[in-house]
Amino acid sequence: MMTREEYIESLRKLNLQVYFMGKKIDNPVDHPVIRPSLNSLAMTYELAQHDEYKELMTAKSHLTGKTINRFCHIHQNTTDLMNKVKMQRLLGQKTASCFQRCVGMDAFNAIYSTTYDMDQELGTEYHKRFVKYLEMVQERDLVVDGAMTDPKGDRNLSPSQQPDPDLYLRIVEVREDGIVVRGAKAHQTGAVNSHEHLIMPTLAMREDDADYAVSFAIESDAPGILMIYGRQSCDTRKMEEGADIDLGNSSFGGHEALVIFDDVFIPNERVFMCREYKYAGVMVERFAGYHRQSYGGCKVGVGDVLIGAAALAADYNGVPKASHIKDKLIEMIHLNETLYACGIACSAEGKPTKSGNYLIDLLLANVCKQNITRFPYEIARLAEDIAGGLMVTMPAEQDLRDEKLGPLVRKYLQGATGTNVENRMRVLRLIENITLGTAAVGYRTESMHGAGSPQAQRIMIQRQGDIEGKKQLAREIAKVDVSLDQKPAGK
Amino acid sequence: MMTREEYIESLRKLNLQVYFMGKKIDNPVDHPVIRPSLNSLAMTYELAQHDEYKELMTAKSHLTGKTINRFCHIHQNTTDLMNKVKMQRLLGQKTASCFQRCVGMDAFNAIYSTTYDMDQELGTEYHKRFVKYLEMVQERDLVVDGAMTDPKGDRNLSPSQQPDPDLYLRIVEVREDGIVVRGAKAHQTGAVNSHEHLIMPTLAMREDDADYAVSFAIESDAPGILMIYGRQSCDTRKMEEGADIDLGNSSFGGHEALVIFDDVFIPNERVFMCREYKYAGVMVERFAGYHRQSYGGCKVGVGDVLIGAAALAADYNGVPKASHIKDKLIEMIHLNETLYACGIACSAEGKPTKSGNYLIDLLLANVCKQNITRFPYEIARLAEDIAGGLMVTMPAEQDLRDEKLGPLVRKYLQGATGTNVENRMRVLRLIENITLGTAAVGYRTESMHGAGSPQAQRIMIQRQGDIEGKKQLAREIAKVDVSLDQKPAGK
Amino acid sequence: MMTREEYIESLRKLNLQVYFMGKKIDNPVDHPVIRPSLNSLAMTYELAQHDEYKELMTAKSHLTGKTINRFCHIHQNTTDLMNKVKMQRLLGQKTASCFQRCVGMDAFNAIYSTTYDMDQELGTEYHKRFVKYLEMVQERDLVVDGAMTDPKGDRNLSPSQQPDPDLYLRIVEVREDGIVVRGAKAHQTGAVNSHEHLIMPTLAMREDDADYAVSFAIESDAPGILMIYGRQSCDTRKMEEGADIDLGNSSFGGHEALVIFDDVFIPNERVFMCREYKYAGVMVERFAGYHRQSYGGCKVGVGDVLIGAAALAADYNGVPKASHIKDKLIEMIHLNETLYACGIACSAEGKPTKSGNYLIDLLLANVCKQNITRFPYEIARLAEDIAGGLMVTMPAEQDLRDEKLGPLVRKYLQGATGTNVENRMRVLRLIENITLGTAAVGYRTESMHGAGSPQAQRIMIQRQGDIEGKKQLAREIAKVDVSLDQKPAGK
Amino acid sequence: MMTREEYIESLRKLNLQVYFMGKKIDNPVDHPVIRPSLNSLAMTYELAQHDEYKELMTAKSHLTGKTINRFCHIHQNTTDLMNKVKMQRLLGQKTASCFQRCVGMDAFNAIYSTTYDMDQELGTEYHKRFVKYLEMVQERDLVVDGAMTDPKGDRNLSPSQQPDPDLYLRIVEVREDGIVVRGAKAHQTGAVNSHEHLIMPTLAMREDDADYAVSFAIESDAPGILMIYGRQSCDTRKMEEGADIDLGNSSFGGHEALVIFDDVFIPNERVFMCREYKYAGVMVERFAGYHRQSYGGCKVGVGDVLIGAAALAADYNGVPKASHIKDKLIEMIHLNETLYACGIACSAEGKPTKSGNYLIDLLLANVCKQNITRFPYEIARLAEDIAGGLMVTMPAEQDLRDEKLGPLVRKYLQGATGTNVENRMRVLRLIENITLGTAAVGYRTESMHGAGSPQAQRIMIQRQGDIEGKKQLAREIAKVDVSLDQKPAGK
Repeated sequence: MMTREEYIESLRKLNLQVYFMGKKIDNPVDHPVIRPSLNSLAMTYELAQHDEYKELMTAKSHLTGKTINRFCHIHQNTTDLMNKVKMQRLLGQKTASCFQRCVGMDAFNAIYSTTYDMDQELGTEYHKRFVKYLEMVQERDLVVDGAMTDPKGDRNLSPSQQPDPDLYLRIVEVREDGIVVRGAKAHQTGAVNSHEHLIMPTLAMREDDADYAVSFAIESDAPGILMIYGRQSCDTRKMEEGADIDLGNSSFGGHEALVIFDDVFIPNERVFMCREYKYAGVMVERFAGYHRQSYGGCKVGVGDVLIGAAALAADYNGVPKASHIKDKLIEMIHLNETLYACGIACSAEGKPTKSGNYLIDLLLANVCKQNITRFPYEIARLAEDIAGGLMVTMPAEQDLRDEKLGPLVRKYLQGATGTNVENRMRVLRLIENITLGTAAVGYRTESMHGAGSPQAQRIMIQRQGDIEGKKQLAREIAKVDVSLDQKPAGK
Repeated sequence: MMTREEYIESLRKLNLQVYFMGKKIDNPVDHPVIRPSLNSLAMTYELAQHDEYKELMTAKSHLTGKTINRFCHIHQNTTDLMNKVKMQRLLGQKTASCFQRCVGMDAFNAIYSTTYDMDQELGTEYHKRFVKYLEMVQERDLVVDGAMTDPKGDRNLSPSQQPDPDLYLRIVEVREDGIVVRGAKAHQTGAVNSHEHLIMPTLAMREDDADYAVSFAIESDAPGILMIYGRQSCDTRKMEEGADIDLGNSSFGGHEALVIFDDVFIPNERVFMCREYKYAGVMVERFAGYHRQSYGGCKVGVGDVLIGAAALAADYNGVPKASHIKDKLIEMIHLNETLYACGIACSAEGKPTKSGNYLIDLLLANVCKQNITRFPYEIARLAEDIAGGLMVTMPAEQDLRDEKLGPLVRKYLQGATGTNVENRMRVLRLIENITLGTAAVGYRTESMHGAGSPQAQRIMIQRQGDIEGKKQLAREIAKVDVSLDQKPAGK
Repeated sequence: MMTREEYIESLRKLNLQVYFMGKKIDNPVDHPVIRPSLNSLAMTYELAQHDEYKELMTAKSHLTGKTINRFCHIHQNTTDLMNKVKMQRLLGQKTASCFQRCVGMDAFNAIYSTTYDMDQELGTEYHKRFVKYLEMVQERDLVVDGAMTDPKGDRNLSPSQQPDPDLYLRIVEVREDGIVVRGAKAHQTGAVNSHEHLIMPTLAMREDDADYAVSFAIESDAPGILMIYGRQSCDTRKMEEGADIDLGNSSFGGHEALVIFDDVFIPNERVFMCREYKYAGVMVERFAGYHRQSYGGCKVGVGDVLIGAAALAADYNGVPKASHIKDKLIEMIHLNETLYACGIACSAEGKPTKSGNYLIDLLLANVCKQNITRFPYEIARLAEDIAGGLMVTMPAEQDLRDEKLGPLVRKYLQGATGTNVENRMRVLRLIENITLGTAAVGYRTESMHGAGSPQAQRIMIQRQGDIEGKKQLAREIAKVDVSLDQKPAGK
Repeated sequence: MMTREEYIESLRKLNLQVYFMGKKIDNPVDHPVIRPSLNSLAMTYELAQHDEYKELMTAKSHLTGKTINRFCHIHQNTTDLMNKVKMQRLLGQKTASCFQRCVGMDAFNAIYSTTYDMDQELGTEYHKRFVKYLEMVQERDLVVDGAMTDPKGDRNLSPSQQPDPDLYLRIVEVREDGIVVRGAKAHQTGAVNSHEHLIMPTLAMREDDADYAVSFAIESDAPGILMIYGRQSCDTRKMEEGADIDLGNSSFGGHEALVIFDDVFIPNERVFMCREYKYAGVMVERFAGYHRQSYGGCKVGVGDVLIGAAALAADYNGVPKASHIKDKLIEMIHLNETLYACGIACSAEGKPTKSGNYLIDLLLANVCKQNITRFPYEIARLAEDIAGGLMVTMPAEQDLRDEKLGPLVRKYLQGATGTNVENRMRVLRLIENITLGTAAVGYRTESMHGAGSPQAQRIMIQRQGDIEGKKQLAREIAKVDVSLDQKPAGK
């Protein structure tokens, strides 16, 4: 396993094509806007070295028997699934951000079982290829961007119906030694901090869309790959000289990028699906399922920090004992733990796939994510309630540092007797960061849309919810005699 | 293990003092108001004989190695805890009611570990006594009413401060061979269908309240015990001649009773706490914890029936494909599964006590119950939305059966083409039963107050929520330097 | 204007065909199940005689200049519309029930303006006829059941497509002197306490459905009319001997009935629409609009009683000062006043129709009703929270009255020191009545479905919400240049 | 009345002491961060000149009979109160921001009636002074910052108990010709765009705090006044070269500042309260009441824009007809109109004060604001749901403008067929602006805390909610006989 430092050095060696605000970034590793997101990812390496966290952060590879980072692991049982969630909560607590490495882990497990099914049913060698690839990843302890979401263009049209055929990533050429792909993956979490991209199709496909049924792995600096780093709320605060307090979270962050594939060549040994359109849906459903579970860990960890920050804000405001403040903190904890409960439950109810790895309970994982699209918003609202208006009307850090203004700021922003104004500002800026700033992108909007927008979960809940079985329960209790219905109700 | 029939016969042999609406009930077993609640309890025996359900319904006694009903079991691991929840969901699905036997199971497990701690720390023999008692219960497959809630009188006064000292159940005499107790237990679920009462104190006690720190078991027909059967919404519909459709659920129900102890003698071998007031709080917390977990099973099962009934109502109304109907059913499932997730999660996160049995995660169990005080109400609201107004304006069953009115009812209550009017009425009456009728007592008000009112859970969430730990997480992210605070914030 | 007593006597003179639970009710006025609903209606007469309430309860007829009961009034300005809502709140406060006379008032105002439009545009004489009819109603101070909702049969089929053509009320014969109608109106509020039925179509119609586009007035005891009184939760408690406490509200109630028209003849002077299908939709929309406004008054009044009862329950329980109790009461008030605000706002924003009477703001009236489908449920939930479990486990009134049991009930149901147990029971039974019992039919299910189910309001909100106008606002702010769109977005 | 241009010129003449991010701003009028907020305020002048909006935007002064900007008006009736709300909604629609001039209007009306009461009861001349001041303001059409909120320091201590006596603004010297004040007002909306500050005390006072019971007016560039402009989320985007699309709303914004009074002299004719501590509470309650009404207008207008933007986003995404999208838009409108209903209702229920001006209904105004602390958050959440993840992962405007990247951005961000990518980006950035960016400060956090934090409204709802009256209603319905209570419940 790599250390934090080794990981950072490994990134320096990559020749990435990264653009931000119209300019090419020559050294993403040290770019002030990008670096915090790298620090979050680096935490997945750092904590794996801590004795205290080893049990959660590492696992024994079922392929090699070696100790590996859990982010590279194939889940072997429900304990693994639960530990995954706990690891994610821990990292959320330590970074108050998206740490970006989950997409790879979730892709590994989805592709692992889907390629197994394909090989069994089609006689292909995708699983074999993938296992080999995975061994390499485990051995080298890499960060892999599990990439699913295409730009999608006109939502009313299937991939092959789009006016521009590239709006879903596709195979443009099949060569003897590999394939050439074109298109893009949008909203790619941590793309710039990744060694590899691991591509999956974005939805269930029909025969017409076979060219879009493609899965493969590729080095992130392969020729033809270009990344445009997305703007975030308050992103440029990180570029302000000496910025510290006003960042709220000066060490950590997350990022997403638009990753463009301009006729990129993929050698055969890295191709895991090539036009087998019938398996696209299964792979999507499994990846989405794992990733919906993930949110029951990572967002809960960020929620822990936000709850702590709100409690601190109440302390600095001097009102920690007001009954309504206490009640709001309780509500925040209640909502946050409900999310965690969903993450744990879909794990504890996991079942083995044919390939032997464990899949979460799909119904509960979708229920988990559906709650994630709601509760963080309410937790954030309560945090803003507790924080008070100062959070958004407060002078800048530069005012505090200024010779003339500093004493005025210190005088008039004094909170609870004896407490420090700078500390108070730090806490309020942290809440701002998570509710409005760079981290709000992760805590709010990504909670909404990451791993699928709310409606995607509702469709899965409908499919998995066994309404017919529930109707039968009701019929038995109510003594409904269906033979009396000439035409069955509901048909 | 007893069969359903043996159980019913065993109840006939009891000489219970039961009163309902001012009259003594000579034969509770066959009383039309009480019988449905007995049927629910009998289902815990019936399903234990089914091959399909044996795994959930039975367990191997860790005391005797024999197969016993899971309701008599001491949980040996997290799988046991999870199976408990699944068994409860199953029974909720099969009865659409409260099946009343959980309170005993939860009392067994709470008393088991608390008496163990007492014996270890005080050198008492309570655990030894209790194990012996439990063996008898397991062997005879008894229903035991785990009884905690006292009438409480003036909520501002402790037990010993009440103007009437009997408003909490108490020891009025300690004899050589046993104790004499006086007082009452309120809201006793299934009391009339129970062979035994197993009493626990109702809250944490101080030295002044030592006489109230008492736990014991007693036969339900022991001299001095009197039960007043509580009124429920629509209870007397069950006494209407030929009542069937209008009951909604003609087979099953639940009940609660006020159980009065008028100087009842308890022999020493059945006494499990006698004035050890320091242990009252622990016993309460554990029982409440287990029982808050329980609701993540039983209410979910009832919810399944209600969702099914709502879906059927949509079918009979002819609107199953309306997008807003589908969306409401999805929402109902989503909420119901969130409750289940909480039940499973607090089980999967269970840990062994010193006595060896498994305790649920207290924080998550309280979170579970807190959600139970909310979501069934919203599920019920959505069911009423889907059902339509007919549910509460519909003619009576007698109108349908009437020679003159029947054809009119059948003509004008016709729903989706080809469907049967009586079936439609049955489904609507089932929804009425769960949302407004006898079962609403269980699905709504008891969801609110059973196992502790909402505020009780909030206090536990505050205690278990580790706010200080969360503050520390926030301090680290925000780089708060507490040494700058002359006086720590929040103190 | 009639007095309370005159009103009751006037009902005795009617020869109604009323059935309940399979039996014909010879004397509905004195039937214990029906009488409370009559008492509610009688309150509209009683308060009109009180000096304190005259301003709200009466108005000056714009037809005759005489003082009339406001329930017979045609709204002349926004003050009239606001006073209507205030009168309804007052009556809700005084009866804690549905007082049933609003449907007539809302029908008067909807038919008044719609017939005016018809006469203007079609040269008919409907408005003239209706004005004459209304003068009679005002003069005689009658209760008129404004009847809209048909049974509807298969919701996927239009009236004329139903297998049974009578599932919407229709004209079966047009004679020289009048028409003959057949069908039924369902969920008819207060039908049994009404002197007249005033029929309107139930939805917008197309040409095929012209026979269903019919509006008329008819005496409630006209030949061919038969009413089946609907069952309500806990209805038969009213028939228990000496019932008082257990009723919760022993004086007042509401009712609905299925009103069947078996070839009823309507003379021409009482026909206000006859096959003019294009006007059916307008009449429905206006009646529904007025009636959605109404709920912003009446349900708020019932809410006031429920809030008061919850506050009293907290007093009798001895916890009125607990911060969570106070906060829940505040929340109940907040929600209740939000409903009232909607009732007032749609009135204050009312505008004159061509006929001169005032119509509420349709968007806000629909918003009002939509909130009514939600907040009473939450208010009820909070009331159940504050009440405690005793509400549904409490012994019966007969137990309290019993010589042997009474002292036990009084002993063990003692609440706050010095308070009376019977009073405590009364308060809890009142809460039960409104949340689970007969009044729950009005406070919950009718709040949901009365004046149209929630989805009906959503459709109106969409229509009235001016989304295109809002898009234009957004375009201007965001500087969207639509000329750049080859194909306009959204088309 | 001034034109937009005259207003801007008038600001240039002020010699304000404004600081932002540690630097003095020499020309606030043209500063890119401040200018959008000035544009919002200027809209209150611009629309007053439009024929279309004159009725809402202007009023006839009851002092002079001249036509004045409604922002300088003393409300003469409920129509004035309702027009105020409508004017605010209009301006919210036109600026999608806080337009800052309401605080002055609300201060005028609160001070007008409070000083009247003072003069009547104390024989002072405050009202006379204030009327003269107001005539000048009306005549010169000034922007006045109504300033209430003090920094407050330690919330557990009263003003005079604070370790630093300046944490509430106070009188430090009373001279013959005036007073000298010291302290600060925090969160001052539009302070930098104001000609005048109009100071009020921040809470009810006791005798010890008499020095803090002070109200006065002062020119915003008077000696001793210094303003620190508050940071907002994304504020510096406005300083990016050529910024347009990425601002979301490039023309309009809002701002708040910390306004510090360093021994500022106030001449007597501008002093409206000087140590009359008993009137501090009344003035606060009235100002807060008016300002809580205001939010039922302005935030609704911003909500209209956000709803429009979400609908446009759905169009550009190509999913305007998806039933869940339509339903979310309906919900947004429903919530937004509920807020408006509250604004209208508290106006329509307004009553005259002794001074003759109209005061809103305090209960409903507090209910209005309480909803404002909730619904904009849910509207924002739904907007983020509809917008999709692209809103926070989208490339920057500079990428779109770049020669190399532009074509890629246009290719891969293509939405509904035929629509323009730049338009799509504009709409998404507008939603980002309101939900996460500079306007989120106004639409979210200020909705929470402006005009008082949520708990402040709850206290008022409790006070105004007449719980005792509601208890009496319940007693009458339940037939509670209080004479049976030895000690009244609740005492």
